[in-house]
Amino acid sequence: MAGYNLEAIEAAPLKEDLDIVIPTIRSLDFLEQWKPFLKHYHLIIVQDGDPSINIQVPEGYDYELYNRNDINRILGPRAGCISYKDGGCRCFGFMVSKKKYIYTIDDDCFVAKDPSGKEINVIAQHIKNLETPSTPHYFNTLYDPFRDGTDFVRGYPFSLREGVTTAISHGLWLNIPDYDAPTQLVKPRERNIRYVDAVMTIPKGVLYPMCGMNLAFNRELIGPAMYFGLMGEGQPISRYDDMWAGWAAKVVCDHLGFGVKTGLPYLWHSKASNPFVNLKKEHKGLHWQEDMVPFFQNLRLSKESDTAAKCYMELSKMTKEKLTEVDPYFEKLADAMVAWIEAWEELNPSVVDGKDVKAK
Amino acid sequence: MAGYNLEAIEAAPLKEDLDIVIPTIRSLDFLEQWKPFLKHYHLIIVQDGDPSINIQVPEGYDYELYNRNDINRILGPRAGCISYKDGGCRCFGFMVSKKKYIYTIDDDCFVAKDPSGKEINVIAQHIKNLETPSTPHYFNTLYDPFRDGTDFVRGYPFSLREGVTTAISHGLWLNIPDYDAPTQLVKPRERNIRYVDAVMTIPKGVLYPMCGMNLAFNRELIGPAMYFGLMGEGQPISRYDDMWAGWAAKVVCDHLGFGVKTGLPYLWHSKASNPFVNLKKEHKGLHWQEDMVPFFQNLRLSKESDTAAKCYMELSKMTKEKLTEVDPYFEKLADAMVAWIEAWEELNPSVVDGKDVKAK
Repeated sequence: MAGYNLEAIEAAPLKEDLDIVIPTIRSLDFLEQWKPFLKHYHLIIVQDGDPSINIQVPEGYDYELYNRNDINRILGPRAGCISYKDGGCRCFGFMVSKKKYIYTIDDDCFVAKDPSGKEINVIAQHIKNLETPSTPHYFNTLYDPFRDGTDFVRGYPFSLREGVTTAISHGLWLNIPDYDAPTQLVKPRERNIRYVDAVMTIPKGVLYPMCGMNLAFNRELIGPAMYFGLMGEGQPISRYDDMWAGWAAKVVCDHLGFGVKTGLPYLWHSKASNPFVNLKKEHKGLHWQEDMVPFFQNLRLSKESDTAAKCYMELSKMTKEKLTEVDPYFEKLADAMVAWIEAWEELNPSVVDGKDVKAK
Repeated sequence: MAGYNLEAIEAAPLKEDLDIVIPTIRSLDFLEQWKPFLKHYHLIIVQDGDPSINIQVPEGYDYELYNRNDINRILGPRAGCISYKDGGCRCFGFMVSKKKYIYTIDDDCFVAKDPSGKEINVIAQHIKNLETPSTPHYFNTLYDPFRDGTDFVRGYPFSLREGVTTAISHGLWLNIPDYDAPTQLVKPRERNIRYVDAVMTIPKGVLYPMCGMNLAFNRELIGPAMYFGLMGEGQPISRYDDMWAGWAAKVVCDHLGFGVKTGLPYLWHSKASNPFVNLKKEHKGLHWQEDMVPFFQNLRLSKESDTAAKCYMELSKMTKEKLTEVDPYFEKLADAMVAWIEAWEELNPSVVDGKDVKAK
């Protein structure tokens, strides 16, 4: 354990309440380095691609693994809503988990260090983010007011200081930034070396690009809206799985009165994917996002949609109505969104009844 | 000059384009320490309180000084719109400046150091903030995309990457945080020691508490909306001068399509003001802000208001209509807002004609 921070190793907050979801094609070697921080948690591994490949999980981890055959068996006719040959397949793991919180991470991500040289416990920070309120109605200039050593500044209305329940915690990446293919091509050597020591709420009504590389959320509150879309093999688009989920989940959080935070924790993103391959995967998305973003910015969900699942069903209708004119693909996506919710409800019956999830 | 960073000393960006406005009652000793960074600029000193007190300005500074007698003489019957015995009097300096940019600073603020130990050139950072675009329509998770070493992340629509012209740069404070009296009382020993290495745009439609301690703005674009209200002697309220200006200016920026940034640069705020005195000054504001913030959040300016001055005249009408029911004070404030704009137009005739300022 040389080099590891013992305090961080021992801190395994809420280990009964959180599952880690990891999509992978081949190797989980990256989990070796994460042991001090992640081994206390149950892993849900979603194997993408060829199901006959044998995925090795480093010793000491408690896990369940689902390959494509498992997904087909469990979801039956609705299995088509889970992407194939795309990281978006991870959302299957969100659906089969029974825990309150999900943390999802990519298999090319490693432990980062803060400026003092201390290794960062991503889970501890995400849990802190999720268990303290968000402040989406007014901006606090000293950032997260619930953090030690800071507070609400002068001019912050007292009626807004209670904040709202946080549903999503979006973590960041040192080293390889999450750029699109054109930016990768233009700036092949740019590395993110700036550690910004802040967590902040994304204000209500404001959209952001949610990356799935280092992401935690409360699945009881927002799980049904965390659908990573229909991407990869057989689809005209890839690399927009997390974006789609992020826009939808933000709109649903805003509607239900939940908060979304971004900032800490950082992890170390080791490997830039091939920009030419990415360009092929992304090119329709780069174009379509000019319509998708205004679609999400302008839509208004109805009062009747008072759970994430109901919101998402309404969203699927709107997707069909408004985005099919951009491309027929969106009709297929809208149908997959319905299949996703139906499958979610089947696997999570208590949530369907609205017993666990209430709009606040 | 031992201990000073020579590179910073030599960097005096846009010295012909910026005035520094400083409100003070008694002493400008704090300017001694600022010489390396501020002495290249012209100072506009607004002397508050007793005009017979002789204010000493450290050697080497080029300045003009206005006391209450000067304000009365220059503004005549409209002089009542400038606060007396309140830092809000600083806005008189905004009005008499002829420069493009204003930087305003409090006289209990000193040079701060970044984590590497280098002294921070506040003007250089503010100018950088003001001369690069803002991105109010969509949140960039790696913060200011125009900063070296970073960019727009994946999922950021290309149509939004040009950004909008920045009108306001709100800087922060290490050491004594800008808390209201109740928070000062509850946390007398809290110090801000966290250097958050970020600049970000406050999204469109989102309000924030603007502090006047370390603030820069483009007076050609937004000057008329930077009125620091009617506070201090003879008024029922104090310490809300910058808040009022911040809410109004943000709403006007959003309407005209200009951007507002917050974050870097930091300065060192040396002295916590007396919380009991502050409580007396603030108590009505603490109550009224519960109405003022929703007022600014919900108002919509008309298309006809296509300059900051026109927006502000419309805002004065709305203030009278909507806030007078909170307290008769707001009727007086609304009249002072009109007097402010009339005085601004008299002193800045080219801006009045709308020749210099165009809505974008």
